[in-house]
Parts: sequence; structure tokens; C-alpha cells
Amino acid sequence: MGSFITLTTDFGVTDGYVAAMKGVIYSLNPEVTIVDINHHIQPQNIREAAFVLSTVYSYFPIYAVHVVVVDPGVGTDRRPLILKTPRAHFVGPDNGVFSYILEAYSCEPQPESQRVRLGPEIKGYAITRSEYWHQPVSRTFHGRDIFAPVAARLSSGLLASSLGDSIDTVTAFTIPHSVRQNNTITGQILHIDHFGNLITNIKEENLSSAGQSVTIVIKEYSIEGMAQTYSDTEGPAALFGSSGYLEISISNGSAAAFFHSQIGDEIRVLL
Amino acid sequence: MGSFITLTTDFGVTDGYVAAMKGVIYSLNPEVTIVDINHHIQPQNIREAAFVLSTVYSYFPIYAVHVVVVDPGVGTDRRPLILKTPRAHFVGPDNGVFSYILEAYSCEPQPESQRVRLGPEIKGYAITRSEYWHQPVSRTFHGRDIFAPVAARLSSGLLASSLGDSIDTVTAFTIPHSVRQNNTITGQILHIDHFGNLITNIKEENLSSAGQSVTIVIKEYSIEGMAQTYSDTEGPAALFGSSGYLEISISNGSAAAFFHSQIGDEIRVLL
Amino acid sequence: MGSFITLTTDFGVTDGYVAAMKGVIYSLNPEVTIVDINHHIQPQNIREAAFVLSTVYSYFPIYAVHVVVVDPGVGTDRRPLILKTPRAHFVGPDNGVFSYILEAYSCEPQPESQRVRLGPEIKGYAITRSEYWHQPVSRTFHGRDIFAPVAARLSSGLLASSLGDSIDTVTAFTIPHSVRQNNTITGQILHIDHFGNLITNIKEENLSSAGQSVTIVIKEYSIEGMAQTYSDTEGPAALFGSSGYLEISISNGSAAAFFHSQIGDEIRVLL
Repeated sequence: MGSFITLTTDFGVTDGYVAAMKGVIYSLNPEVTIVDINHHIQPQNIREAAFVLSTVYSYFPIYAVHVVVVDPGVGTDRRPLILKTPRAHFVGPDNGVFSYILEAYSCEPQPESQRVRLGPEIKGYAITRSEYWHQPVSRTFHGRDIFAPVAARLSSGLLASSLGDSIDTVTAFTIPHSVRQNNTITGQILHIDHFGNLITNIKEENLSSAGQSVTIVIKEYSIEGMAQTYSDTEGPAALFGSSGYLEISISNGSAAAFFHSQIGDEIRVLL
Repeated sequence: MGSFITLTTDFGVTDGYVAAMKGVIYSLNPEVTIVDINHHIQPQNIREAAFVLSTVYSYFPIYAVHVVVVDPGVGTDRRPLILKTPRAHFVGPDNGVFSYILEAYSCEPQPESQRVRLGPEIKGYAITRSEYWHQPVSRTFHGRDIFAPVAARLSSGLLASSLGDSIDTVTAFTIPHSVRQNNTITGQILHIDHFGNLITNIKEENLSSAGQSVTIVIKEYSIEGMAQTYSDTEGPAALFGSSGYLEISISNGSAAAFFHSQIGDEIRVLL
Repeated sequence: MGSFITLTTDFGVTDGYVAAMKGVIYSLNPEVTIVDINHHIQPQNIREAAFVLSTVYSYFPIYAVHVVVVDPGVGTDRRPLILKTPRAHFVGPDNGVFSYILEAYSCEPQPESQRVRLGPEIKGYAITRSEYWHQPVSRTFHGRDIFAPVAARLSSGLLASSLGDSIDTVTAFTIPHSVRQNNTITGQILHIDHFGNLITNIKEENLSSAGQSVTIVIKEYSIEGMAQTYSDTEGPAALFGSSGYLEISISNGSAAAFFHSQIGDEIRVLL
């Protein structure tokens, strides 16, 4: 049974940053398998990183270590963090990149703060034990000097509790959920994928009673009914995508280009 | 002896789609080595995927599983397919992405259809055994839910015949071959590479009798004689590239930009 | 203990070139781990490849084989090269891509040439033993046909001396160092990273006596003092980056866009 580390960053692929992290990891655990999730997160876009990770992590083998380095506060007093669930470890800055995981594990938002209290199935650790880091530690690249070696140690079986101090609350942003009022569900575009599909925060279960006979409104445009596949119709179509979210797509084209859409734009479903 | 799975898709690298496939594969076969061939196939461009795969698959270890997910018909009644040759498995939609492999194995075009009859050295299977898929199966992402788990099973030693039903004919497009008439060979640009080299469908064997003293005509431009290397000449040059096809290149520059060339453009060789 | 091969090329990721190299490597050594350093080196930019490699190779496990294929002279009489240090092998064309490694190992520039004499801790071999190559050898893709199989053999334990002939001098370009005159250090931008940070050739040790209270001059702009982290200030900041070089950055923005900077542009530090 192999061990796995995944990487999600905003580093791009035109430098040596991702490779430096991999070199540090393999130097500590030559047997681990490293999988790139995405290195093209928009620079410093914590919400995009959080969303992409949320759509993927559950497909990986149990006990995988998921590292996210989208870290505008690197070198400041923001904490480096480990989260431990029954299935996986998550390693990265305590800045909200794990917000969807925290919600999935029923962590309670704390009043008047950007923090949540950890639920019973998830444990948190502030990474503090510098003897396990790559020395010297730069102030600008904790991905290489802290997160990579910590992930490598976890993948080798070291306990999270040996790498830091237990904590009760961690940073999370408020995930924008769709809202139902009377017979209208109002949601937003969370992500635009490589094909130009518009992925919203309206989930299949939000429409369950309505079935397929709904009207989807995007800008001045109405789409009647839900499609089953990307090639069902010629023009714009709405369907439930592979992560369970309502998507707007255009067969063999880009819905993002057609609608000039951006992340955050509103989508409505009339039941 | 390790087992290998290669991936060729039009998914790009700005979402989590490729990673989701890898997570599913590693969950079923943690020991496999996954190699990315290309995730930048132009969206829905079956011909480009087929060409790129054809230039690469023979370099991989025997019994590798080559997965292609360029799949505009995902979720419709197009069949998911396994092809089995003496050296490798190929997994993907039955939409023509394996056309070059089918030609290499002497599959016969069927009259008045886009289909070929499988030759004696290649076997085909419609993937039907849903107990081996990732459940629930989405209608929009068979790469993750059908092709990835099927490839993982094959890499673990499961027989293709256990995963589906034997079939005799599969979909293939007609590969555009160069044509010789009198002393002129007329070909087309099949692919434009990262350097701007124009890769045509004129093969080294098509010119064998003529040797090097030919004239290559592209648009209004004539190139006299074949070069041996990319740096032989200052201006445009013609040479046989690493896959055996005639290429037009410019030393330290982009022939595609110089000639404003596109895939499908005509190239002539005067013998 | 696994064995490792890293790849640095200008091949991009829209063809099958990188995958062909990996296929050849895995066919010869199925157990090796291959790590991509960077496939987006500007086409034929030997200096960029040399710099990126120099910032990364030391993080990899001992005895890793670092392959660089930025090779405008492929197929000409430029030599294919192996360098052997106490910690690693380097494989690529003898065109300067290893200039930083040669400097690190105290190789002496030879008068009136682009060559250096190898120091006592580094050995060089011209790759000559074609029985270890992938046959037939194309004239345009030595990455696949010579460098990949040679790297695979080294990773399997074959001695460099079995793969070629010992040589004393190899090609290197002159690395542009910063220059101090009176109280001014004049340097240049060596690299612009994915975030738009401007990475210069001014090192932390060049300023050691001056400490943090310096003025950095870029174009018409002055930056007072060194910052500690990317988020210390709102506007342009200077700090020492993760490879020990002085960088100009802008918090949550691109310094390259702000200053319209290019590689080679001058930066001055007033002590």
C-alpha cells in the first residue's frame, strides 16, 4: 500500500518552485507518490484553491496527505496548519484554504470572527516543531521549507501530534450557499472550468422536489429544463456536473465566453 | 516490473479533473505509474488526440494502458471502448481517438460508415460491466467514473474480456494521407508543435526514391532540398522529424508564425 | 531507496515530446521516479534553463540524474554530455545549460573560449556509446533517443565512464555577477517568476555588511530598506527570496507588470 501526497498551489509551472517541494519530499520519503492537483490557482486566490481541492480530495486513497500552498501571508504570523480527519491529512497555511473540508466536518463558525471550532471528527495542529522542517527556513517559501517536509513526515507515518500543537479553532471563509426564496433559488458561479462551463453553488439536492422542469436564468437568458449530457442541445444548457453542482454549458463551445461570465455572477433557478 | 497508465485528455490543468482520474486509479491500484501524455488537446478535437497518441505510445513499456478522454459525446450512447493489442491496452470513447492505432493494425474500413473491422492482432471490447466502475457514475465525467477505474483494473491484471463484451467493428476517421500524382506529392499539416514546427503527413518512405534533392512548396514559398537538423539553415527548412514525418521549421523561430499556417494547410513536394 | 530523474526542457506540454522521453526511460528502468522541473523554458533559452536548474537541483535526493534538453544545436556536432559530481549526475547537450553547476564546482574559465576546465570534484564524459541509445537515433530529438536512455542507464547504476569518453573541458557561458563599486552594487534581473517577482543576481552575502538599511533603485523608482515577507508593504518591496537572491516584489501584484521589467534589466543597491 503506497502513500500519497497531493499538491495544490498558485505557483504555476514556469519556475522551479513545485519541483523544489517535490525534491524536499522525496529526500525525506523516496517511496511516496506525489500527485499534482492544480498549480494554476489564480495567484493568492484562497477561495479558488479551496473549491478545487473540495472537488477532488475524496477520490484519493485513504490516508493521503493533501498539501495546499496558496499563501499570501507567508512569513507573517499566520499559522502553518495540519488538519487530520479519519481519511486524510491536510497541510497548508491557516488562511481558509480548507474551508470546504471544515464545513464537511461540521465545524461551527465562531461569532464575529473568520474562525470555526473544529468538530469531533477533525483535529487541528499548529505546525511548530521546527526540527522537522527544511533548514534554513526562508521567509518566502514555506511550501518548500515547512509544508513539504511536514507532508513527507506525515506520509512516512509520523503523527500530526508530533509535528505541532493541538488547536481548537482555525480560519475559514463563509462558503457562499445558494438561497431559496419562494419558488426561486438564487446562486452564484463558483468556478469556470477549462471548457468554459460555469459551475454554480446550486446542488442537485436543492432542486430535488422540482425535478427537471425548471427554468434557469443567467443574465438576460432563460434555459428551459435540465439537460442530461453536454451534447443534448445546441445552445446553452443546464445540467448537474460531475461534482453535483448545477453547471451552464454550451455543446462544443464555451459558456463563459458566450455569456461573458465571471466568478461570483448570479444564476437563478425558477421552480 | 511496474505497470503503467498514460493519460491523454482535453481537460487542461486549471481544474481538478485530471487529478480526480488519478485519485480513482491510485485507489484501485496504488502501485501503478501514471504518465501524462498531454492534457492540452484542443477541446473536443478527436483528431489531434489521435495524432499525438500515435507519436508516443510505442515508446512505453509493454502492457501499458493508454487512456484517451476526448469525449464530446460523454453520457450519450457512444460506447466506452477497450482495444487490446499484443503490446498494450487502449481505453477511451469509441469515437475515433484510436484511428491511427487501428490503421497500424490493418483494420479494414467498412463501406459507407465511419467504422473499421478489427484485424487479427487487435481485439475490441465495449465496456459494459458497471460493477467495475466508480459509483455513482456521472453523466458528464466518464473519464473519472468509467475509463479511470477500467484502466486501473487492466493495469492490475484483470482481463479486458471481464470488463466488457467483445465487438468486431469500432469507429475510426479516415486518416488524411499524402497523395502522389506524377512528380508531385501533396500533403497536409497534421499538427503544429510547441516550437511552431509544421508537421505534415508526408513520410520519409514517400520520398525514398527522390532522396534529398526535392523542392518543398508551402504557400508562395519554395524550399530547396531537405535539411538534416533544425539549425542547418537560417530561413525556413524542411526535414524529417522525430516521428518520421516531413516538417517545416525555422531555426530559432516559429514556422507557424512565419507562414501563418494552420492545421490542414496544404504542402507540396516536387520530386 | 528509489532512484530519481528530473527533466528540464523547452518542449512545452502541447505535444508528446516529454511523454516520449518518459516512455523511453520507464522502458529501461521501470522503477525510477521521474520529476518534471520545468518544460516551459523559453524555446532555445539556455541561460533560463541553467538558472532554473541551479535553484532546484540541490533539493533532490542524492544520486539523482538531472536531464536538461534545451538544445538548439541538436543533430550538429555539439557533444552530448554527462557531468558527475559527488551528489548527482547531469545529462544534456554541451552548450552551457550546466554553467551554474560548473561554477559551483570551481571550474576554471579557459582563456579566449566559451569553455571551462573541470575542477577536481566534477567529472565530464562525452556521450559516445551508441549501443546504449534508443535506435534509430533521429537527428532532431536527442532528448528521446540519447539523453533519456543515458539517464535511465545512470539511474539503473551503469557508470558514466561506460557511457562515454572522459573529457577535461566543457562549454559554459559567463554567469553575470553583480558588481560593487564604492557604495553601489549593480546587478541585473536574472529571472521573472510566475508571480511577477523580479529575481536579481544580487545575493544576500553581497550586502552582509550593509544590513537592511539600503536603497534599491529600479528604473526611476527607489525602495527604502529590505522587507522580510511579500506582504510587509503595499507598494514595491525588496527582499531576499527563497534562493538567496534579492527580489523585487509587489504584495498581491506583479512587479514585472508594474515596472515593465525584462530579464537583463539593471537593478542598483545603494549601501
